[in-house]
Amino acid sequence: MRGMKGLVYETSVLDADEGIRFRGYSIPECQQLLPKAPGGAEPLPEGLFWLLVTGQVPTEEQVNWLSKEWAKRAALPSHVVTMLDNFPTNLHPMSQFSSAITALNSESSFARAYSEGVNKATYWEFVYEDSMDLIAKLPCVAAKIYRNLYREGSSIGAIDSSLDWSHNFTNMLGYSDATFTELMRLYLTIHSDHEGGNVSAHTSHLVGSALSDPYLSFSAAMNGLAGPLHGLANQVCMDANVKVNVCKYSENSVQNIRNTFLILNCVVPGYGHAVLRRTDPRYTCQQEFAFKHLPDDPMFKLVHQLYKIVPNVLLEQGKAKNPWPNVDAHSGVLLQYYGMTEMNYYTVLFGVSRALGVLAQLIWSRALGFPLERPKSMSTDGLMNLVGANKSG
Amino acid sequence: MRGMKGLVYETSVLDADEGIRFRGYSIPECQQLLPKAPGGAEPLPEGLFWLLVTGQVPTEEQVNWLSKEWAKRAALPSHVVTMLDNFPTNLHPMSQFSSAITALNSESSFARAYSEGVNKATYWEFVYEDSMDLIAKLPCVAAKIYRNLYREGSSIGAIDSSLDWSHNFTNMLGYSDATFTELMRLYLTIHSDHEGGNVSAHTSHLVGSALSDPYLSFSAAMNGLAGPLHGLANQVCMDANVKVNVCKYSENSVQNIRNTFLILNCVVPGYGHAVLRRTDPRYTCQQEFAFKHLPDDPMFKLVHQLYKIVPNVLLEQGKAKNPWPNVDAHSGVLLQYYGMTEMNYYTVLFGVSRALGVLAQLIWSRALGFPLERPKSMSTDGLMNLVGANKSG
Ligand SMILES: CC(C)(COP(=O)(O)OP(=O)(O)OC[C@H]1O[C@@H](n2cnc3c(N)ncnc32)[C@H](O)[C@@H]1OP(=O)(O)O)[C@@H](O)C(=O)NCCC(=O)NCCS
Ligand SMILES: CC(C)(COP(=O)(O)OP(=O)(O)OC[C@H]1O[C@@H](n2cnc3c(N)ncnc32)[C@H](O)[C@@H]1OP(=O)(O)O)[C@@H](O)C(=O)NCCC(=O)NCCS
Repeated sequence: MRGMKGLVYETSVLDADEGIRFRGYSIPECQQLLPKAPGGAEPLPEGLFWLLVTGQVPTEEQVNWLSKEWAKRAALPSHVVTMLDNFPTNLHPMSQFSSAITALNSESSFARAYSEGVNKATYWEFVYEDSMDLIAKLPCVAAKIYRNLYREGSSIGAIDSSLDWSHNFTNMLGYSDATFTELMRLYLTIHSDHEGGNVSAHTSHLVGSALSDPYLSFSAAMNGLAGPLHGLANQVCMDANVKVNVCKYSENSVQNIRNTFLILNCVVPGYGHAVLRRTDPRYTCQQEFAFKHLPDDPMFKLVHQLYKIVPNVLLEQGKAKNPWPNVDAHSGVLLQYYGMTEMNYYTVLFGVSRALGVLAQLIWSRALGFPLERPKSMSTDGLMNLVGANKSG
Repeated sequence: MRGMKGLVYETSVLDADEGIRFRGYSIPECQQLLPKAPGGAEPLPEGLFWLLVTGQVPTEEQVNWLSKEWAKRAALPSHVVTMLDNFPTNLHPMSQFSSAITALNSESSFARAYSEGVNKATYWEFVYEDSMDLIAKLPCVAAKIYRNLYREGSSIGAIDSSLDWSHNFTNMLGYSDATFTELMRLYLTIHSDHEGGNVSAHTSHLVGSALSDPYLSFSAAMNGLAGPLHGLANQVCMDANVKVNVCKYSENSVQNIRNTFLILNCVVPGYGHAVLRRTDPRYTCQQEFAFKHLPDDPMFKLVHQLYKIVPNVLLEQGKAKNPWPNVDAHSGVLLQYYGMTEMNYYTVLFGVSRALGVLAQLIWSRALGFPLERPKSMSTDGLMNLVGANKSG
């Protein structure tokens, strides 16, 4: 399906050279136009969600309304809390996250409305309600997983309805540094959406087209995001950075890098892209954040050096169509700087953000009455017949 | 994507008129060629899995080997048992099923091997191991859900390694009628695979293409199967049958049927198909089973009468491209005859069967090194520009 025009997706469009545009706005434009927290410099993810759903840049008042609405809807049903508390520590955080989201579908108003036979023209209203509830609950689910795995199961505390969504999230995670909260606002904004063809967005679109509710659709998307060629790359990537570091990487040693990745025996995580053909603007804005807040961090320096070397190694190898870094090459180094060193957890943060994009689209998919997604498959034999390559064909 | 040739899928191909062929064999051919249980008349699903994976009709010995292998691998990790036992009764069986499968990924040998950096050429071996384990465990997960919800949490008992997969399953469910076990063999065989474009098969293919492990890929597929336009139709359909029955349906009253579905205010479940344009052979073989084993059952008579009437109603309405029944129109009536009246549970049985098809294909997808599935999406505005319909375009 590479490059096949096969999906209508309203909320964002990806240009191979320029990168993502959310409803026509580039990342720097969003950083400039979207409302910020008092004293903050980064956009609030609430504003991005408003933009994705309505196509309009929201006012501060509208964004405040969203923060309050999400604070109001955040409570988890007790069976999901029990489930999270009983998970064993060897179950990957992404599996815990996805499994809990599926179980949250006991709360779905769409599933209830469908079984009661509501009119098709109103489906989107229930998808909207479910999406708002789910987005509100995700930081609680994610924070519980974090505390259970890495903070001896300490309590995530209570939601403060005077704070924005990201601030409540960092509080629940147990981080009090205001710059980390700023980072989270940026992080949750830029990971939200990347048009419709990437595996997580496509999965939620596909599952949603069978009229599965938003919880089931989004959970399926998370199982895609958990793949190492997709969102899990941020975990794998930071892990590789650490390994490169340990391998006594010296500044200009291209040969060392080449050897290290040969030894690691995998794709170079954080580099390459199925659509992009230039450095990902999501990489660039994280780099700017680093230059501003942690210019002297040794791991940031390493990431920045790799940026100068890896593309040449990939070009020399001649396979990857895009040797430039993507979003995942940079996110880990920022998180670890503020003390979040648990790499296995990184993809969960990506997941919390991705909800904003794919659920905004799901509302539109039902409002526009999109039908069941149903491409045709062929067997190799059938394909050979089609092109006349089989003797019998 | 309707009808777009966009997927390579080896295990089965769907013809609009003729219905499904598994590796070239029609359902009647499979019923004839595949090994049966001693004294049984229906094919063993083990044989179908062998056929899907290898392309060859297996011997009895090969099928016995598979039964034993699955019996050996059936044990559930304790955290999944705990999770299932703690689920509330208002959580839909499909959500319980999918959620548990995601949590089973603690056992994935593919995920472990990938993180250890094994060579790409060997990926399929780990996918094979995971698929065999998962197929072995699914009946235990499904039976636990059934017992917890409808049999006061009574024990599923132990696996008997001298019995086939379906027989162990019906034992664990708590059914001792040998004809019900025969039905289950047929049921689990015919629901397994329906080429690659249906929502569940496509979802597992898509999620698997990001190198998510078989547990995550299959669980995502189950969230698609749980949609009312896809697998959940068997639940919705039986529910509708019961409602039609209650509505005092009289034999020839086309008007009554028409009114009932107008009142129900939804698509007629069990009728229509995105690809098929004739009566589904999966419907026909279930009808034959009913003629043989329960010709006088009043609900079967109702289903059979509906078969004579609904297509006319749909033709008259003029919307559905295919007015004929699909697999879901018939499965419920057979299950209820043997005492399985819990309609909410029906899609779980479909799910257990669907594993055979999509996991057989997943082994091949990794063996053939299929890349990330990544179609291109367009916004409505972009589409308008593409076709020159925007003034500015
Ligand atoms: C993102 C990605 C999956 C895109 O895949 P793609 O569209 O199939 O990429 P290409 O068309 O450029 O692939 C052509 C070849 O180059 C290889 N390649 C691509 N990116 C590579 C990388 N970062 N390191 C090493 N090899 C790479 C591919 O594996 C493929 O090799 P093959 O022919 O032996 O299978 C791929 O670039 C990748 O695996 N990157 C690393 C993981 C990552 O960062 N993912 C997050 C993306 S946001
Ligand atoms: C299977 C199904 C989803 C295929 O969808 P599809 O490919 O979009 O079907 P069509 O192209 O024939 O649809 C054209 C129109 O007929 C309607 N239609 C199709 N099947 C119908 C049915 N069984 N009852 C009433 N209307 C139906 C569609 O909803 C659509 O209406 P719209 O234009 O108002 O949206 C559809 O037939 C359906 O919903 N069937 C009932 C559910 C079911 O049995 N699913 C299990 C399939 S194995």
